[in-house]
Amino acid sequence: MECMTQNLFIGIDLGGTKISTALVDASGRIVARDYRETMAAGGQKVVVERMVDAARRVISEAGVVFSQVTGVGVGSPGPIDSRIGVVTAPPNLPGWKDVPLKQLIEERLGITTFLENDANAAALGEYRFGAGQGVQNMIYVTVSTGIGGGLILNGQLYSGTIGTAGEIGHTTVLPQGPYCGCGNRGCLEALASGTAIAREGRELVQRGVPTLIAALAEGNPERVTARLVAEAAEQGDIEAQEILAEAMAYLGVGMANLVNLFNPELIVIGGGLTHLGEKLFRPVRRAIERRAFPAAARVVQVVPAQLGDDAGVLGAAAVAMAQMASTLP
Amino acid sequence: MECMTQNLFIGIDLGGTKISTALVDASGRIVARDYRETMAAGGQKVVVERMVDAARRVISEAGVVFSQVTGVGVGSPGPIDSRIGVVTAPPNLPGWKDVPLKQLIEERLGITTFLENDANAAALGEYRFGAGQGVQNMIYVTVSTGIGGGLILNGQLYSGTIGTAGEIGHTTVLPQGPYCGCGNRGCLEALASGTAIAREGRELVQRGVPTLIAALAEGNPERVTARLVAEAAEQGDIEAQEILAEAMAYLGVGMANLVNLFNPELIVIGGGLTHLGEKLFRPVRRAIERRAFPAAARVVQVVPAQLGDDAGVLGAAAVAMAQMASTLP
Repeated sequence: MECMTQNLFIGIDLGGTKISTALVDASGRIVARDYRETMAAGGQKVVVERMVDAARRVISEAGVVFSQVTGVGVGSPGPIDSRIGVVTAPPNLPGWKDVPLKQLIEERLGITTFLENDANAAALGEYRFGAGQGVQNMIYVTVSTGIGGGLILNGQLYSGTIGTAGEIGHTTVLPQGPYCGCGNRGCLEALASGTAIAREGRELVQRGVPTLIAALAEGNPERVTARLVAEAAEQGDIEAQEILAEAMAYLGVGMANLVNLFNPELIVIGGGLTHLGEKLFRPVRRAIERRAFPAAARVVQVVPAQLGDDAGVLGAAAVAMAQMASTLP
Repeated sequence: MECMTQNLFIGIDLGGTKISTALVDASGRIVARDYRETMAAGGQKVVVERMVDAARRVISEAGVVFSQVTGVGVGSPGPIDSRIGVVTAPPNLPGWKDVPLKQLIEERLGITTFLENDANAAALGEYRFGAGQGVQNMIYVTVSTGIGGGLILNGQLYSGTIGTAGEIGHTTVLPQGPYCGCGNRGCLEALASGTAIAREGRELVQRGVPTLIAALAEGNPERVTARLVAEAAEQGDIEAQEILAEAMAYLGVGMANLVNLFNPELIVIGGGLTHLGEKLFRPVRRAIERRAFPAAARVVQVVPAQLGDDAGVLGAAAVAMAQMASTLP
């Protein structure tokens, strides 16, 4: 009992629409949880107050006292500057600009707080509690609306000089390819994300191509989502299958590049598109076999993420655990 | 004097045509040197004996004794397995297959020996004694016949799970691009190396396009080299200028990808093509500005390598220094 109470951490997963919070012990067991809406429209003061409330709530629900909580980890939409704990200007937290989130939470809670971007936090979570346990070099990639990533190198999160490393979704894999939300062209995210798949499907509908995509969307391009394209593919639509296959081929190019750059033991893929199952994993593995160095391709495994809905809070808690461990005297 | 003699290292730069060897003190000062041909055609026994001879020669030339040499570092053509000190199967050391070079040299010299691939060794050399002094996160890229690289992350060489990390030249930047020597298509090396530039120039000559390239090569495609294309460009040939500009634009794509993945403070570029000067550095910096995240682009500097001809031996010595430091009790 004594032992457990000395190793409690709070993980806060801050999203554009909801805040998930958990009190977690050092083994990754969730002791108490809180879910609430972000209310991002209310501005940063409201959001910070909701985060602090959520932290207080999981502490009181677990029946522990503040002094038993070693640290707070926050996974935030990027970009952030993790060195100084500042959220720079995340697209899905409108109005936020250089918010010193670490300091604001520390002031309210009186508990040491650490900030990471959400993809880095999820990488740490999978490394410590999920698919990456026991390896030294692991790349975490999340493929959903966007494509993000986190790098575990020599057993530690590598986040770069100001914390922006791991932007796998914004590596160029087709220099003259489609424009990306980041301003660049031909980013992996512009070719292989849910957004890219939906865009390709929408274009077919706009051009009036008579596919199952158009039928499922009732002819309305605005109703085309990646999920809808996947469903059309599932039902045998050739065009939908080609859209998915091309997107996953590009994902494979991006992953093969990671193998040649990082020579990792493990690539862990999470995010909504992993529901595609082997339609995602098979082309990725094939691209690595075809494009990466044979010796490096042989030592890498490509596996699905394991933490599911808990990835955010466990990852955020893992950020605090890793930081506290590295700053111990 | 006592102090210096306790910190001597031997760096051996093993190449396909020559072996460079130096006795180096901990500050990177070269105390004695040896150059000799590799005589690769003689087979691995001959080559190993020549390396050992060279090491003995620099020791005796400096008038020190074996016990004053702390360690030997070898930079070898890749691929190698640095964990076990084995040269796997380098294309320019014909007949070599799984040669336990570390062990062979240790047996002959009785001095602890460490092996790295030549690009990683050069990265460590630039980091410790050259352009990268004082930074934490630095990417070294060599652009010549091929394109190689080495990663210094958090102040240490990151070489991956089996030592093949940093293969920047074999990241795909154009999935359907030209075939590469590695078997993949559209590698950075197939688009931006000296070999790629020569190939493009040769193709013009073969097609009978009347350019200065053809004139300088006297109509013989076999005589077209990257240097010749650069000379034609220098003299105002538009086609040659376009070949160079396109190659350097691809190099920029590859470097921008490194900025988004590694968020480094510094990219150090070495190798023969750096003779192009601003014709290389300007497009690289422009691609980073256009393609990488603004915050990451702001913190990175792109500079030429500083060690020149000494990069190989100083890098190899730095491998031994870094390894001895990390294995000290």
